[in-house]
Amino acid sequence: MAILVNIPNRNIQKLTERLVLALGQQDVFVWPNVPSPEDVDFALVWKHESGTLKNLPSLKGISSFGAGVDAIFADKELPSVPVARIVDEQLSNSMAVYVTTLINSHKLRLSEYSQQQALALWKPRSNRKGNKVGILGLGELGQQTANMLVSCGFDVTGWSQSIKQLPGVKSVTGLAEFDNLVSTSDYLVCLLPLTPQTKGVLNRTVFTKMKNTAVLINVARGGHVVEDDLISALYDKEIAQAYLDVFDIEPLPEQHPYWRTPNLTITPHISAVTNLDTALEQILVNYKNVKSGKPMINLADRQKGY
Amino acid sequence: MAILVNIPNRNIQKLTERLVLALGQQDVFVWPNVPSPEDVDFALVWKHESGTLKNLPSLKGISSFGAGVDAIFADKELPSVPVARIVDEQLSNSMAVYVTTLINSHKLRLSEYSQQQALALWKPRSNRKGNKVGILGLGELGQQTANMLVSCGFDVTGWSQSIKQLPGVKSVTGLAEFDNLVSTSDYLVCLLPLTPQTKGVLNRTVFTKMKNTAVLINVARGGHVVEDDLISALYDKEIAQAYLDVFDIEPLPEQHPYWRTPNLTITPHISAVTNLDTALEQILVNYKNVKSGKPMINLADRQKGY
Ligand SMILES: NC(=O)c1ccc[n+]([C@@H]2O[C@H](COP(=O)([O-])OP(=O)(O)OC[C@H]3O[C@@H](n4cnc5c(N)ncnc54)[C@H](OP(=O)(O)O)[C@@H]3O)[C@@H](O)[C@H]2O)c1
Ligand SMILES: NC(=O)c1ccc[n+]([C@@H]2O[C@H](COP(=O)([O-])OP(=O)(O)OC[C@H]3O[C@@H](n4cnc5c(N)ncnc54)[C@H](OP(=O)(O)O)[C@@H]3O)[C@@H](O)[C@H]2O)c1
Repeated sequence: MAILVNIPNRNIQKLTERLVLALGQQDVFVWPNVPSPEDVDFALVWKHESGTLKNLPSLKGISSFGAGVDAIFADKELPSVPVARIVDEQLSNSMAVYVTTLINSHKLRLSEYSQQQALALWKPRSNRKGNKVGILGLGELGQQTANMLVSCGFDVTGWSQSIKQLPGVKSVTGLAEFDNLVSTSDYLVCLLPLTPQTKGVLNRTVFTKMKNTAVLINVARGGHVVEDDLISALYDKEIAQAYLDVFDIEPLPEQHPYWRTPNLTITPHISAVTNLDTALEQILVNYKNVKSGKPMINLADRQKGY
Repeated sequence: MAILVNIPNRNIQKLTERLVLALGQQDVFVWPNVPSPEDVDFALVWKHESGTLKNLPSLKGISSFGAGVDAIFADKELPSVPVARIVDEQLSNSMAVYVTTLINSHKLRLSEYSQQQALALWKPRSNRKGNKVGILGLGELGQQTANMLVSCGFDVTGWSQSIKQLPGVKSVTGLAEFDNLVSTSDYLVCLLPLTPQTKGVLNRTVFTKMKNTAVLINVARGGHVVEDDLISALYDKEIAQAYLDVFDIEPLPEQHPYWRTPNLTITPHISAVTNLDTALEQILVNYKNVKSGKPMINLADRQKGY
């Protein structure tokens, strides 16, 4: 009866300390240190190496250490046990605040004024006009983001697989509505999970359809964006601005052209950081559930891929 | 029966066109062009020159063209007729969005990341810790701002003359609570009207009491801040950052030291701009009320000075 923490390339000291405190030293294995694979009934993972979850004969459940499960389902040798993720209202609120802050900064022209300040220039202008926000993905994060934008006065439409009932938010689905949304949005926000269906969804075709004044915000996964297409779209001014918080390779390599692309603003994956306390609570619930044969909470759907 | 528009140093073409459209050419006088002072029963003013509202024997009401009335009550020769102002939920929402955006940008360290981007540096940090916002003035603008900050997760206290009941917002009053609020706030927002009581309220004594990590946001009037005291406080790092949208003299003169003070961010009075349509609606209601002997809406209190 043990939990395997399989989170490479990260400082997980606090996390393991807290797990040891809750479960006892003997029940917490930290990959690649697995003294008795047959004792592992639960795995806690984040960007684990494909193939490192097989050969655990007692495994009954896997939990992501974040909201996304793309790196888990990308593992072709993933054992066929249920997969859970973190669902945290505070995490969704952080995301909503981040996206709303970027959109409002742009609308208020804050960076324009900052350039003017350097020249001691007083040039009040009216706010940028566009008010239409399209959100791709209307799940936990997309919904909270939509609500906050509505409360700021934006005209918000969300695109998802199934239609939602959210006060003040238009909900659409299907490819025709996708085309319509990307063509008409002043701000296009990606909050989709990364799946085979959504990989590369933000590509040349989309950028061509977008307004020249439109702003792209990707806070989901780097893989949603076709990098060369975005760089061209920004150089060719097919879109006005992009904000990216997530990248195919993180940390974003120093030589990556993104750093120096015009009208591209980069933040280092800080839009919604997993809170250790909330995550631990859910992980411990799921560990208990798995051991006692109960279904896990916050399950992902392997068929759908998210 | 005429309205006098007394708004010097501003482009008021659209405003007067709309008034003429509504009332007819003969009923709209534009200062200093007052063919028959005895016909003026209503004055629409913004930063009028003191003394230019006397000698209007039929005057029955004055309206500000904005939310503030400080420049009206500053006129020592102001006729003793009722004074109204613009109250507009959209204006209050603009203010709430502006203040919330600045606070969240600071909390998210967006300008830090922008400096790092210029160096191709990937350095994720946790959000700034402080969560306590003190709002001086809990009127139309202060209340909406408080509500929006609460919905982003901030711990909000408002200071006003009278105690308010606002869900999630602490309401305090009096000098001891003022001291307590400025000493404990991570973000201190000024949304007071400018009156003899509030002039210079943001001064050396206050900056000394504030935390070294605190941020000051003044979106009310330039006169609330003692300029030299703020400049010293920023140079001496008594406070961490100031955002100013309003100034004693606007446009802020090119030679003003503010432009180059460290950790001081300037925007050119754009936080909440009067909307012509909403303002006109209220002005026309009050013009009609005045003519028919009814009380004006959105009255200011001459005794209180706001
Ligand atoms: N930048 C960060 O710090 C950060 C932090 C956390 C998460 N994230 C990313 O954000 C993503 C979203 O998180 P979440 O918790 O909101 O996920 P979620 O609750 O699973 O929501 C996903 C949404 O996307 C929709 N969707 C999925 N596939 C679709 C498709 N092919 N076509 C149309 N709509 C589709 C879903 O539609 P239905 O509702 O109809 O199923 C749902 O509305 C995560 O997967 C993760 O990659 C980033
Ligand atoms: N930057 C911009 O673009 C912009 C735009 C519009 C307005 N403004 C400024 O914002 C100010 C506030 O507007 P508003 O519409 O919110 O005004 P308001 O509705 O009159 O509210 C004023 C608030 O300040 C409080 N107050 C006044 N004097 C006080 C004192 N001596 N001690 C403690 N509290 C005091 C009042 O307390 P009570 O509630 O107890 O009376 C009230 O809560 C305006 O006067 C204007 O100067 C700036």
